[in-house]
Amino acid sequence: MTAEIICVGTEILLGNIVNTNAAYLSERLAALGISVFFETTVGDNPERVEEVIKTGMKRSDILILSGGLGPTKDDLTKEIAAKACGQKLVEDAEAKERLTSYFTSIKRPMTDNNLKQAMVPEDCTVLYNGNGTAPGMVINGPEGRKVVLLPGPPSELIPMFHEQVEPILSKLQPGILYSKVVKIDCLGESYVETQIMDLIDEQSNPTVAPYAKLGEVHLRVTAKADTEEEAKELVMPMVEELRSRFGNKIYTIEEEETLEEVVVKMLKQKKETIAAAESCTGGLLAARLINVPGASNVLNESFITYSNEAKMKYLSVKEETLKEHGAVSEETAREMAEGVLKTSGADIGVGITGLAGPGGETGTKKPGLVYIGVCRGGHTEVKKYDLKGNREKIREVSVCRALTMIRKALAD
Amino acid sequence: MTAEIICVGTEILLGNIVNTNAAYLSERLAALGISVFFETTVGDNPERVEEVIKTGMKRSDILILSGGLGPTKDDLTKEIAAKACGQKLVEDAEAKERLTSYFTSIKRPMTDNNLKQAMVPEDCTVLYNGNGTAPGMVINGPEGRKVVLLPGPPSELIPMFHEQVEPILSKLQPGILYSKVVKIDCLGESYVETQIMDLIDEQSNPTVAPYAKLGEVHLRVTAKADTEEEAKELVMPMVEELRSRFGNKIYTIEEEETLEEVVVKMLKQKKETIAAAESCTGGLLAARLINVPGASNVLNESFITYSNEAKMKYLSVKEETLKEHGAVSEETAREMAEGVLKTSGADIGVGITGLAGPGGETGTKKPGLVYIGVCRGGHTEVKKYDLKGNREKIREVSVCRALTMIRKALAD
Repeated sequence: MTAEIICVGTEILLGNIVNTNAAYLSERLAALGISVFFETTVGDNPERVEEVIKTGMKRSDILILSGGLGPTKDDLTKEIAAKACGQKLVEDAEAKERLTSYFTSIKRPMTDNNLKQAMVPEDCTVLYNGNGTAPGMVINGPEGRKVVLLPGPPSELIPMFHEQVEPILSKLQPGILYSKVVKIDCLGESYVETQIMDLIDEQSNPTVAPYAKLGEVHLRVTAKADTEEEAKELVMPMVEELRSRFGNKIYTIEEEETLEEVVVKMLKQKKETIAAAESCTGGLLAARLINVPGASNVLNESFITYSNEAKMKYLSVKEETLKEHGAVSEETAREMAEGVLKTSGADIGVGITGLAGPGGETGTKKPGLVYIGVCRGGHTEVKKYDLKGNREKIREVSVCRALTMIRKALAD
Repeated sequence: MTAEIICVGTEILLGNIVNTNAAYLSERLAALGISVFFETTVGDNPERVEEVIKTGMKRSDILILSGGLGPTKDDLTKEIAAKACGQKLVEDAEAKERLTSYFTSIKRPMTDNNLKQAMVPEDCTVLYNGNGTAPGMVINGPEGRKVVLLPGPPSELIPMFHEQVEPILSKLQPGILYSKVVKIDCLGESYVETQIMDLIDEQSNPTVAPYAKLGEVHLRVTAKADTEEEAKELVMPMVEELRSRFGNKIYTIEEEETLEEVVVKMLKQKKETIAAAESCTGGLLAARLINVPGASNVLNESFITYSNEAKMKYLSVKEETLKEHGAVSEETAREMAEGVLKTSGADIGVGITGLAGPGGETGTKKPGLVYIGVCRGGHTEVKKYDLKGNREKIREVSVCRALTMIRKALAD
């Protein structure tokens, strides 16, 4: 069963708002096992809306439209969808009743264009709106097609879809879709893909799909079956196969879990605390850790030591080290990690120093050169990275690499 | 002239990511005076990508595609677009050279699938990628059509579009479009909109369009004329009108300038330094300031003082203050700002303490409650904010508010 999402609204095409409805609907439809092959956004223009609906009705079983159900002249989605399904509009008594009592309750007169919202196609299920005035509807279109009309505001669309549309759609669907995501934090996308080329080549059910994320690669394993149990039985052996290939490069197989959450969880389990001394990343590592609720159990303090003076003052980095090797060096990263551990009394100390650019290169040291030191249990490891990209990307990837190093230090 | 945006990526259709590229491209194309009538998202499926490209080539002058340029087998956008334009792929020497030196620099072997990225359609302008491996391209298609291929990651797409594609597209346009953006950092979108409703109602040339950004509102003033000079003469009186309405709530009218850049510039001009003590924002303020190249002139050090102990140890926040008023209080924010100024020897001290949630509420203190203190020249101002949203949003908006307070303190 295939669905197509059609968002109606000139404000989206002008870039005034980001289309979060499309992402929400996509995710929910995927969870229902309904394949979404196309998403289209079109402005409030009758001819173009009609063109998109007609194209969709040729190629998809279900059309989900959002927006254009309001009372204004621009709101024409319902009229066009009804026409495309060969249906007339009729007044829905309950919709009219709800509109009337709404306007009574807010003590405003109801204008004629508001009444337009009580008109619905002849053969449809009306979806009453608990969070706004425009009702939604599921039109029974030709050849068993369903055309779902939803209001544009996410605060109205989300509860209406979840509470009223999902039960209808799940009944149309044979089978269940189940998926797991395998998250890898220290290998590149193309390397990961060459390692699983054989699995991708022979895939049918389950499928394996790689997604490149900032500093990470996610592999999504998805299977379809009659029951969730059966689908899970197809997915899990593939997850195990990926585990045997990537081992401890995998940091989680939990959908919602981030790398920083894994690190905070490991710290909590070991009852250890962490403190960082950040130079080029300037607080980004601490900020990512602190974005995990409950991070206060594992991070009490952290430093941004941007100047040489601050590195000496708070971390006891030696003046000779800075003079001989420079602020961006293995030696400085090591002394930063060891120094912040001592100053803070934390169990793990992290030092990050690098050139994020643009400019600032000295001799062989070019933007992208980053040293990260991690000190734990009397042992300090320092790694050198040559990162690509602009200032922001170099800083963000540095944080990813630091999180991976912390994760590995904690796994020892 | 009309354009159509086509985003390629199954991960968008699965709802794994929100399509921010579409919003960015829409806004930039609107600023170039190019009308976008359709945006389509399609998965990594050759037949469906081809269908969408063919449909687009029938109805739009310019197709802008994002995604599917990577080295993996799923990445087929270039191959399909070249075929739709009736062109073969040929190796681009510079692209190959760049790929080779990239892999040499990161000391990883270049696999054959990476070399695929050096292949480009016969008749195109290659867009070299400063922030990733996949080059983009502007294909000269049939009947004067342009097919623009861009990499999917926003950190690669945005600079490539802005620096390389916009100059090409603006030459295709008759007349000149000139726009200025007026950036406001301390008023809400709906308030700003009501203040300029009369301007929006009567607009034709120039136009004024509001865009809500995180913690900011941007007003884009755009005019079209035969020459840049004439367009500018239409735009600037409107900019002056907005200046007279919003005054010092406007922090810049420079396209590329961010709020943190304005703050760093003001600090440099006044030869002052800044240091922060961050609790709930955990390094985000310092990280934003340090993302400005040359921030080392104005920020030497900064603190993340998450625990009460750290607040006392580094900032000399009094134990009684924490006991009597709590860590999230006007008094603590004041002592943090004053303490970090003293410890660091900086000219401006900033203290941020708040509840980012979820959970952690005590009595009347609910998530979203944030106190920000700014101390400069012997005077400390503390403001209380009740922010909405999830943990991440509360933290990010707190940083916006702090930057605004610093900007105002520096303007005195």
